[in-house]
Amino acid sequence: MQISKGVEWAVHCCTVIALVGEGRGLNAEALSEFFEVPGPYLAKQLQALSRAGLLESMRGKHGGYRLARSVDAISLLDIVLAVEGPGPAFRCTEIRQNGPCGVPRKECRRPCEVAAAFADAEAAWRDALRRRSLASIMQEASAGSTPGHLLEIVEWVRQKTDPVA
Amino acid sequence: MQISKGVEWAVHCCTVIALVGEGRGLNAEALSEFFEVPGPYLAKQLQALSRAGLLESMRGKHGGYRLARSVDAISLLDIVLAVEGPGPAFRCTEIRQNGPCGVPRKECRRPCEVAAAFADAEAAWRDALRRRSLASIMQEASAGSTPGHLLEIVEWVRQKTDPVA
Ligand code: FES
Ligand code: FES
Repeated sequence: MQISKGVEWAVHCCTVIALVGEGRGLNAEALSEFFEVPGPYLAKQLQALSRAGLLESMRGKHGGYRLARSVDAISLLDIVLAVEGPGPAFRCTEIRQNGPCGVPRKECRRPCEVAAAFADAEAAWRDALRRRSLASIMQEASAGSTPGHLLEIVEWVRQKTDPVA
Repeated sequence: MQISKGVEWAVHCCTVIALVGEGRGLNAEALSEFFEVPGPYLAKQLQALSRAGLLESMRGKHGGYRLARSVDAISLLDIVLAVEGPGPAFRCTEIRQNGPCGVPRKECRRPCEVAAAFADAEAAWRDALRRRSLASIMQEASAGSTPGHLLEIVEWVRQKTDPVA
């Protein structure tokens, strides 16, 4: 099982986009520079976040992405599902119905015990990620950082989003 | 995020291998027939289970796989990790260290908040799967089945593993 690195990128991008001032937007190019990651793959993740309603894009010369909701209203689960798709990690192919001793289809109305156990585990995983808001991640990150470093990031974002710059 | 269908196959194979009698083994070919799945890919999963110490293989004309431990001592987590590998689903590439505002490496001794949150979620997922033994899955499956169907499976396994057959 593997979560694509697009998820790491997307979460970190959201923490930076959260710093964009009113009426501004941060574009994909700036974010790819900020994190030194390839632009085209990053652009795909940002589009996925946008399609999922987590980002909104501002058009125009100084356009770019903004958060479409407050940092309290975006969870890590929202971001993972936007990037990885909403489907479950475990997909049952109904292997129990196959072969010489297969369970007849009409007796398979309830999910297989194995599939149900994986669904339970995945629900626990999702719950844990649903409980973690972007706000809480940013708070923890600030607490572990220095005021100087935070100012540096805020200043970088300001420069990249300032229409006068 | 996606769990390979090899996990579904592997768990179901273990529930059948659990029925093999003392001193016998069930081979990959029989299992591929039982579940109507392609032999080579199934063989790979069985080898992975074997490498992880969940199955042992009996040599010889009537050889094949047996469980290496009791059904109580094999969890769904054991099977997933055997098939998918032991690594975490979320892998942090330390993207926080990149770019013009990167966090200096020496300040990155603690895991990033994002990586820590994903590790917590994955621990919850693993705990849920660790709590589900092969025994409990087989009990539930039996409870939802008919005595006739269970006998059919036991008989099929007996025929495939009987040296006289
Ligand atoms: S039939 Fe799909 S998990 Fe059992
Ligand atoms: S640096 Fe990897 S998750 Fe934050």
